[in-house]
Order: sequence, then structure tokens, then C-alpha cells
Amino acid sequence: MIKVGVFGSTGYTGFELIRLLVGHPQVELSFAASKSNPGVSLASIFPGAPEIVLVDPDEVAVEEADVVFLCLPHSTSAPIALTAIKAGARVIDLSADFRLRDVDVYREWYGVTHPTPELLHDAVYGLTEITRNELKDAHLVANPGCYPTSVLLALYPLVRADAVASPVIVDAKSGVSGAGRKPKPANHFVEVANNLKPYNIGRAHRHLPEMEQVLGWWSDAPPKLVFSPHLIPVPRGLLSTIYVTLKQGWNDTKLRELYSDVYQSEPFVQLLPGGEVATLGHVNYSNRCTIGLTLVDGILIQTSAIDNLLKGASGQAVQNMNAMFGIDETVGLM
Amino acid sequence: MIKVGVFGSTGYTGFELIRLLVGHPQVELSFAASKSNPGVSLASIFPGAPEIVLVDPDEVAVEEADVVFLCLPHSTSAPIALTAIKAGARVIDLSADFRLRDVDVYREWYGVTHPTPELLHDAVYGLTEITRNELKDAHLVANPGCYPTSVLLALYPLVRADAVASPVIVDAKSGVSGAGRKPKPANHFVEVANNLKPYNIGRAHRHLPEMEQVLGWWSDAPPKLVFSPHLIPVPRGLLSTIYVTLKQGWNDTKLRELYSDVYQSEPFVQLLPGGEVATLGHVNYSNRCTIGLTLVDGILIQTSAIDNLLKGASGQAVQNMNAMFGIDETVGLM
Amino acid sequence: MIKVGVFGSTGYTGFELIRLLVGHPQVELSFAASKSNPGVSLASIFPGAPEIVLVDPDEVAVEEADVVFLCLPHSTSAPIALTAIKAGARVIDLSADFRLRDVDVYREWYGVTHPTPELLHDAVYGLTEITRNELKDAHLVANPGCYPTSVLLALYPLVRADAVASPVIVDAKSGVSGAGRKPKPANHFVEVANNLKPYNIGRAHRHLPEMEQVLGWWSDAPPKLVFSPHLIPVPRGLLSTIYVTLKQGWNDTKLRELYSDVYQSEPFVQLLPGGEVATLGHVNYSNRCTIGLTLVDGILIQTSAIDNLLKGASGQAVQNMNAMFGIDETVGLM
Amino acid sequence: MIKVGVFGSTGYTGFELIRLLVGHPQVELSFAASKSNPGVSLASIFPGAPEIVLVDPDEVAVEEADVVFLCLPHSTSAPIALTAIKAGARVIDLSADFRLRDVDVYREWYGVTHPTPELLHDAVYGLTEITRNELKDAHLVANPGCYPTSVLLALYPLVRADAVASPVIVDAKSGVSGAGRKPKPANHFVEVANNLKPYNIGRAHRHLPEMEQVLGWWSDAPPKLVFSPHLIPVPRGLLSTIYVTLKQGWNDTKLRELYSDVYQSEPFVQLLPGGEVATLGHVNYSNRCTIGLTLVDGILIQTSAIDNLLKGASGQAVQNMNAMFGIDETVGLM
Repeated sequence: MIKVGVFGSTGYTGFELIRLLVGHPQVELSFAASKSNPGVSLASIFPGAPEIVLVDPDEVAVEEADVVFLCLPHSTSAPIALTAIKAGARVIDLSADFRLRDVDVYREWYGVTHPTPELLHDAVYGLTEITRNELKDAHLVANPGCYPTSVLLALYPLVRADAVASPVIVDAKSGVSGAGRKPKPANHFVEVANNLKPYNIGRAHRHLPEMEQVLGWWSDAPPKLVFSPHLIPVPRGLLSTIYVTLKQGWNDTKLRELYSDVYQSEPFVQLLPGGEVATLGHVNYSNRCTIGLTLVDGILIQTSAIDNLLKGASGQAVQNMNAMFGIDETVGLM
Repeated sequence: MIKVGVFGSTGYTGFELIRLLVGHPQVELSFAASKSNPGVSLASIFPGAPEIVLVDPDEVAVEEADVVFLCLPHSTSAPIALTAIKAGARVIDLSADFRLRDVDVYREWYGVTHPTPELLHDAVYGLTEITRNELKDAHLVANPGCYPTSVLLALYPLVRADAVASPVIVDAKSGVSGAGRKPKPANHFVEVANNLKPYNIGRAHRHLPEMEQVLGWWSDAPPKLVFSPHLIPVPRGLLSTIYVTLKQGWNDTKLRELYSDVYQSEPFVQLLPGGEVATLGHVNYSNRCTIGLTLVDGILIQTSAIDNLLKGASGQAVQNMNAMFGIDETVGLM
Repeated sequence: MIKVGVFGSTGYTGFELIRLLVGHPQVELSFAASKSNPGVSLASIFPGAPEIVLVDPDEVAVEEADVVFLCLPHSTSAPIALTAIKAGARVIDLSADFRLRDVDVYREWYGVTHPTPELLHDAVYGLTEITRNELKDAHLVANPGCYPTSVLLALYPLVRADAVASPVIVDAKSGVSGAGRKPKPANHFVEVANNLKPYNIGRAHRHLPEMEQVLGWWSDAPPKLVFSPHLIPVPRGLLSTIYVTLKQGWNDTKLRELYSDVYQSEPFVQLLPGGEVATLGHVNYSNRCTIGLTLVDGILIQTSAIDNLLKGASGQAVQNMNAMFGIDETVGLM
Repeated sequence: MIKVGVFGSTGYTGFELIRLLVGHPQVELSFAASKSNPGVSLASIFPGAPEIVLVDPDEVAVEEADVVFLCLPHSTSAPIALTAIKAGARVIDLSADFRLRDVDVYREWYGVTHPTPELLHDAVYGLTEITRNELKDAHLVANPGCYPTSVLLALYPLVRADAVASPVIVDAKSGVSGAGRKPKPANHFVEVANNLKPYNIGRAHRHLPEMEQVLGWWSDAPPKLVFSPHLIPVPRGLLSTIYVTLKQGWNDTKLRELYSDVYQSEPFVQLLPGGEVATLGHVNYSNRCTIGLTLVDGILIQTSAIDNLLKGASGQAVQNMNAMFGIDETVGLM
């Protein structure tokens, strides 16, 4: 049994993660910590949740865990990661703290100096399908952002094949749980219902530098992105509609071969047949990323859907854990 | 033209009221005040709202208004009502401050001592259809609560006819705008969507004493209420399903005659034909109260629907203003 | 392994059932039949569903199944039940065909003559918590309706204890999947969103005779019901608010003891602490029935919530199968 | 008073139109026709609608109307337009029948031969802000499609200024009323809620040739479009996010001047300040088109929002009527 601990248990990703861990046949939950609600049962916060008493994060025995998951705000997460690693635990961090490798970029986008720059060079970016070989021995895993997961899985084959001719346009739509559980005017039911809101469009969202950094790992001449997220009136689910101008010589057959080569044996990537598009219905409550490919006059339109709380956060975190501990990646996931 | 001022312009009822007042052909808006957002345009808070610059409530010239509307929290409202009345303005108060006549009951349910008990005996309860004769000369109108409006209009004919045999059960369902615009966990989109929540059921909601007080005005032996509100995943709309055990001798024909006598010429009360039930669709974006009557084995099931922001708040406030100033009650309303 | 077959795979209950069966560790799916879509993959109808090719119901080998589930319309279901039983399979019927024991009542409410009255006396009503002893040897199980499941589990202890003084009022609210997958004006998104609709209120819904029949099994003087269902804008979930006037002598302590005695070791009945009410959030995507008890001046207000597709249909069907085959009732369920 | 008649009163656009016409101070409704529901009150179909008895379209006196509105399916509409024009009435057609000028393009996209090609050359395309001069004397007005209205108003200044460098990408999102009132699996509440669905993406939607035709009127070298509509879980509202690569020399200031010149005195076009984006909240229940402009590295991202039933259909139809009859365009609209 893998002994796991969770920090930040009362956010949406923390709760979703605990649900998965409790149902995982090879996991034993050592502790679920919460700074805001120590001593309280998780079920009193989330109706229907398991009866697990939350503990004060300052009182947990990190050293008893084989791996800890951090579901904390950025810059809060990194110092706890350091403590946990020193105590001998492996760390899967769901915050943004170890996604960006460049401390200047981190400061520019997150507005603070990186708390633990010494850990950055050891962090593995946990986009499982692409980086699983590095995960086996990883001590620190940066779980990707939700938008980046949907966009990068869709773009990876193209970028590796050097098929992209120009800026890529990503028009993305996300459910409200992606914005966190803290009450704000922007997530008030009355503001969200019957509405649709673009936000941070163009090159203004924190997930943009994360995506461009990773594209830069895959190509010497990575495409620039225009990235426009939209808030949609659903609790969960994320769909990116991605417009890629292809270089000469790409047709439908060649594209399908490319994607099939990369993803055909992936349990959590579903490639749709020609003419079909991904929807939230394909992925809700599943760890799947569903991708549709529509080629129109040299422009490839990709539709890439994930459940933002699963493949976009806690599900991929468990998939990463499975890869780190050498067990089948699908265990405990749907 | 009636010169009007509004206090508390940035809540849901304040905004809805201003929308109505701006479209009212016999109204001139003197000021729209907001303590939280002075100097800001209403349109920057509510996309699509008129471009009206909000003013500091401490800097308005109340004496220039013929009538002021108070869309403020309870106990904040009463002192401003006093100031306005002293300055010569008539007052329509949408808070709870002048609904309850008994200061002890007020303190019990609202947890504070009434700020201006001296005003209570002059306040007219503005359930327009029932109290319009008193409104003509009123200087202070207590606009009824949303639940009471739907329940009292439905029960009035029965209680006046002494037809009720036992405790009345009110199972009420309200949209989320009824809970106000302040962000709270309970109105977070993710908590509300796909959910349905009873709250303050039985005899625990503040609208209970308001309703029982008014029933007591109408009968020497008013029925007691069991009142169970539920939060439903819609932005606006309120439906009360009311179960009344009738005294002997009431049948469908007699009931319909009773209701028809009372309401047939009311522009804002819609009595449904037999076999039909009220839904939110009947009343959304309208000042109407739609009532269905279903008699089953001596138990009358009433379905009574209103738009909580209109007939349940700002619409009825405008209807009250119309009655106070002797103009057709339907002007400026739908 | 239990070999199972499903008829009616493309309705909401059929699909939900197949999802459960595919994840059940002791089940092997022999066939999933669909009259409307033979030869088609389930995944092409429900995005994200498993890739299972649906077969023509006239071409399945019923005799190879240990148990078949019927997710068919009433009166279509019964003849297939007869065929399956003759072929040696046990049957769990999710339609209404074997819920009512009296063929005259069946004809009155369902408008047709019962197709197989000879099977009625052998059918076990599959409200698992109450009838599990009869399920072990049952060849034909009538899976209860969704509303009856939520209401009967809540009322059972009271009725058995002879605690009910008068007609019981059930104000029930259901998500739209309860009305089936066939497109109708009443389930059009635009009609349902932002709306709330009472329907078949009083004594007009087909689940009323089902509930009163079962109450009659439990008591010589069963209470009559007033039953008012409402359609709410959620895909799934069902909450019944139940108003019960108690006989003399019942207080909170005694009530809690009663319910605790009956349900404390039930894995799928969650009794809430005093002061808490059941919500859809307690039960969505779970086979649980969550019950809250609020006693006010001699009237007990029960809030009883289920997921209509799970405990209200396919989940309870699997629970019944588990009971029939002598395995732990919780296997394959959450 | 303008005497108006409506054909196709029971669809969403027909109902919305009648609501507007009934409230229009210079309109007298001569008839509201419905082939499916003659003799029935509109209020029995749409709860809360006015009590207007629908008439059989074969029995109306078209010649008594000054103008008739056709809210009918394509190819059904054209023959009735012909009849009405012969009878001396002016016609505003909300179907697609007179939007495309080329009968071959019409046949290609709508699958039928145009019923009345002789009327095509006289039809005025009723994008009011752009074509109002032609509307004054028009006898036949083709009311634009909902997507084209939002896209063309946003692109008009750019295309006229020859500012567009390459294919324009339109990622559009529409509420469900845009798909009509006929029940279909695709508009079932359970399928739409919690979901987001791209459909007919790329160059496959019927509004594509309509938009490209109009762009061709405005420019000798009009841009090609990539057009990807998405169905979102809201009843009404439409937002187009439009990505335009600009030619050299355009900056934010120059863009704002361009748009301000074209639209500053338009009552129904709202140009947002820099940094703001259009949302459905800006336009719901209004005839407004709200446009946001965000320039990023030479790519202009436009957000253009309308209420699909108002500016995208019935509201613009009334605006067109106002223009045709020489009255203020804003009368009867918000």
C-alpha cells in the first residue's frame, strides 16, 4: 500500500483527490490536512463526502507518507514541498509553483519571488502521457494546469512533427470549479447562470507562459499562442477549440496516422473518428482527454475536452502517482 | 413627474428597481446612491445597465425627492427612513425594518433592537392588492418579503372567508437572487448548480413571523404555518406550494367563486383555470402573481408563483409607488 | 461471475445500469440489447460510454444469462420478463409492470390490461433494505419507482411504529432524467432551464398507488398520501420533503432511536444529525438515500434525497442483484 | 398605427416578436397565425404570454396588414411572402429564404430549389445599422441570421477599411433557443445541461455563406471565414469571439477611432472601453450588440454579444420595421 497525505483538502481539487484516493485499491490515506478546518469532518464541508477528520497541517507526520499531494495556492505550496522532500516523502504539487522553470517568468506572472528556487531543476512536469519515463524516479512532480493539459495533449504530435505554420489560436471554455471554491462575485450563481464570459484573453492568462514553455521543450521553433479562456455556466468540464494553420503537405490521412501513432495505446486519450467533435459529455467524471480533428482548407480545428477536476487536476495527479510507483496508470481512475 | 431617489443601488433589488424606474414614464430619477461604489457607473457593476453615476448616500439631497426607495440591509434602513421622512420625502422600504409591528418580535428574529420604533405605527404594509386604500396617504411603506407576497396573496381569500381548518403547510422554492448579491459559499455556482437545498425549514425562517402577523390582521383565529423554503438552481423566480386543509362545505365551484370575487379585476394576479398549476415560466420578468388551485379530498393545493425580484420586491415597490401617487398601478410594469 | 443481460440499453436507466455493470467485479455482461439501435456502439449514443455493440433484442440468447435487467416501457417489459423466466433467467424489472399487485389498479393507472398477470404473485418488490430476505430466492424483482424509493424509505420506520396521525403530505422534486430520454416539449432545455413546474399534483401521479400499496403491506391503517411532484432544472437527483403529523408521545429522542434502530447498519441509508437537511449534493452519483428529520410542534418534516438514476433506478437494481446472488450489497456501488 | 400580422407565432422568434409588438406603442396586431395551433390562445402555449387567439394562416386577411412578419421554416416562408406582397403588404422575413442572393448557393446549403427566385433581387438585407437607407422603401426585408448579425456588425468597419490580412476565425457560442422549439435529442435538458458542444465547425454551418456573401458586398477582396459554432447551456444569448489578423499599421488608437466613427451614434451598438470584453450579461433581454476590441501582437480579438432572439431575430425585425416606416428605430425596444 502506498501511504499518502493531502494538504489543502477543502478546495475542489483537494476534495476530488481524496475521493479518488479513498477508492484507490493500493492507497492508504495517512492524513488529509486543512488549515481552515482542522478537526472537522470532510463530510460536514462536502455533503456526501467520506467521514474523514481533517488535521492541522502543522501537526501531520509527513515522514510517514510515501507521497504527499499539495492542493494549495501558489507560493504557499513550495515551502511545504521542501519540508516534505526533506522528510523523505515524494511530492505531487497541484499548484503552479513548479510548473515554470524560470524564476523570472514565475515572478512576472505570479507576482512573488519563488519561495524555493533550489527545487525547480528537479521538478518533473507531470503531463503523464508525455513525461512518464521521468516520473518513475521523480521526487517532485509539477501537476500541469487544466488548460495546458487539454491544449498540450492536442498540440504535442503536431509540434513534434514540425507541422505548425503560424500562431495557434486557442479558444478555451471552462466550468466554474476551475476558478476555485472561494466565494467571489465572479462565481456567484446569479452572475454565472445564463451567462458566458471571456476573461484574460489574448496573452494575459497565467497558463499561457506554462504552455509556451512546454512547447519550447518540444521544438526549436515553437508556435506562439493566442489564448482566450471563457467561463461557461457548468460546474466542471473544459473544452479547448484550437485553430492551427498547418504547413504544406498535411492531409487528413497523414494527420490521423500521426495522432494514432502517438496516442493509440493511451488509456486516457480518446481520438475521435473523422467528423466528430469533442464535447464535455465525453469526459465529465472521467480522467479522459477526448480529441477531435477537423481539417478545413489547411486549417486544423482541434476540439480537446477534459474534466478540469480530473485529467485537469486530481485525476492526472493520481495517474502521475501510479506512474511514479510503477503500478498500472489506470488503477483507481475511470 | 415623480422625483425618486434610491438607496442601496447595487444589490439585486436596487438594480432591478432602477431598471424599472428608468423605464417609468412618470418618474424622474433624482439620485441612485451606493455606499460601496460612489462615483462609479451602474453599468460598470451590472453589464448592460444604464449609465448612471452612483452617488455617496451621505451627499444626496433627500429633500429634493418626492419618494425614496430603500434597498438596504435591515437595521441600516430604518435610520435613513427617519431622515428622509423628516426631510419631507415619502419612503418605500424594501428591507424588513417596518414589516413587523412588534419590536420584541423584531428583536427576536433580527437580533437587534429596532432603530426607530417611533415610525412603526405609521408604516403601511405594502401588499398592494390588499392594502391599496391605506397607501394613498402613506408616508412610510413596508414592502413585503418575497415569500410572504406569494403566500399571503394565495391565502388571503381563504383566511378572510374563515375556510382554513388546520396548520397550513407551505413548501416554498426560491431562486438564488433572493439570497442577495454578497458572495457566500451557499451561492457559489458550483454549490447551487445541480443541487436543491431546503433551509430554515419548519418555523425557522424570518418570513414566518411576518406572514403569521399579517394572517392575524385578517382573522381572529389565523392558521399557524409550517414553512419550508428551498433554494433552487435558478437566478430568479419563487414558487410556493401550499397545502390547506379546508373546513367542511368547500368545493371547487365555491372556491373559484371566492377567488374570482377577490381577484378578478386585479391586473397583477392571474388565477389559473382548474387543472392548471403555476410555474416560474408564468411570472419570470413580470410583476404578476400566478395562482393555481387544486382541490383533492378536502385538501386545497395552491401553487403560487412570483418573480422574487419583481412582485416579490422591486416590482411591487413600484406598484406601491403608483398607488401612493394616484396613478394607474400598472404604469411602468409588465 | 454473474452473467447478465440488459434490455432497453439506450434509455437513461439502461445506460446508467450498463455503466455500473461494466465496473462490477463479479459481473460479466452477456448482452446489451436495444430495439432502436441494434448494431450500434453504445458510445456513439452516449459520448464517453464504453464501446459495447448493442444487439437486437430478438436475437439475444436469454438462456445464457443468469439474470436480465429490463429497462423498458411498462407493458413492453412484462412479456419479455415471461420469456426470460421461461428460459431460466432471473429477472429484475425496472419498469412499473410488477410493482402493483392488483391488475385493476394497474389498468386504471397505466391504461392497459396487464400482459402477464400470472407472474404478479411471484414478484418481489425490490426495496432492498426492507425486502432483502425475499430477494435471495426471487426469480422476478420489481424495482421500485424513484419517488416511492425516497418516500417509502423515509416513512417505513414511522408506519411500522404506528406513529402517523393523518394524511402525509409529500412535496417532491425531481431532475429531468426521471422523465425519460424521449424528446418532448416538457424536457426541452429552454422550457426547463430557469423554471420549476409542479405536475400531476395531489393524487394524480402513477407512483401514488404504488406507495399506498406498499404502506398497506406495512400497516393495517396506512396513512393516505397527498403527493405533489415538481420538475426542477437539474439533470438528476430527487428530493422529497415529507410532512407527517405524528401521534402523541413522539419526541426528537424517540424518533432518532426509531430511525437508528432501523437504519444504523444500512450502508446506503444515511441518517443526518439533528438540524441538518438532505440535499441533492448528498446523493448525486451515489446509491445513497440521505434522510433528515426535523420535528416542529408535532409535525415531522422529513427531507429524503436520492439520485433518481441510482438508488431510484439502476443503482438499486444492482443492489437487488447483489442481494439475489448472495454477495455484499455494496459491491459495484458507491 | 402600423397594422401588423405574424405568421409562425408559436416558435421562439414568433413568440418573442409578438411580445415586442404588443408592447410597441405604434403597432396594432392584426393577426397572429399558427398552422399548428389555430384557435388556441398564445398563453396556453407560453405561460405568461398575452391572451391572443391564434388564427389559421389560411384564413387571415393579409391585405389588411401594413406589414407581415414571417417566423417560418425556410422554403415555407417564401411562398407566403409572395402572397403577402401581392396583397399589398410589406414583408419582414425571419427565415433564411431571402438572405442568400444566389439560388445555387441557396440550393446547395438548404437542399431545396428556391420557391420564389423572382423576389430575390428586391429583398433588402436587414442589418439595420448598415442598410437602413435601403429599408425605407423596401417591400421585402431579409432579416439576418443570428450568428451573422453578431459577426458582421463586428467586422464591418474593418472590412470597409480593408484592414484584414487573412482568414478570420470565428469561434461562436449560442444558447439553445437558437436551435428552435421542436423537441430533439440535441435540445433535451439532460443532454445540454453541464455540457458544451461544438457543431458544424469549420465551413459547414448555413450561416457561413450568408456571412461571406455580405462581406463580398463590402469588399472586393473579402476575407474567408473559419466558423465554429458551439451550443452552450443557456436558453438565450450568443457570443462570437473573432480572431482577425490585421494588416500593417493598425494600432489600438486607430482601431478605436475607426469603430467610434462608424458606431458612436448607434443606439443598439455598444462599444466597450479598452480592456473590457463582451458577455451575455451585457445583452440579455436587450436589442443591443455589445462589442469588445482587444489587440494583441497584431491580432485583433473581438468579442461580440447579442441576444439571439432580439438583435439576432425578433428585435432586429422590429428595428427594421421602425426603419421601414420612418419612426425612431428604438421605439418598442430596449
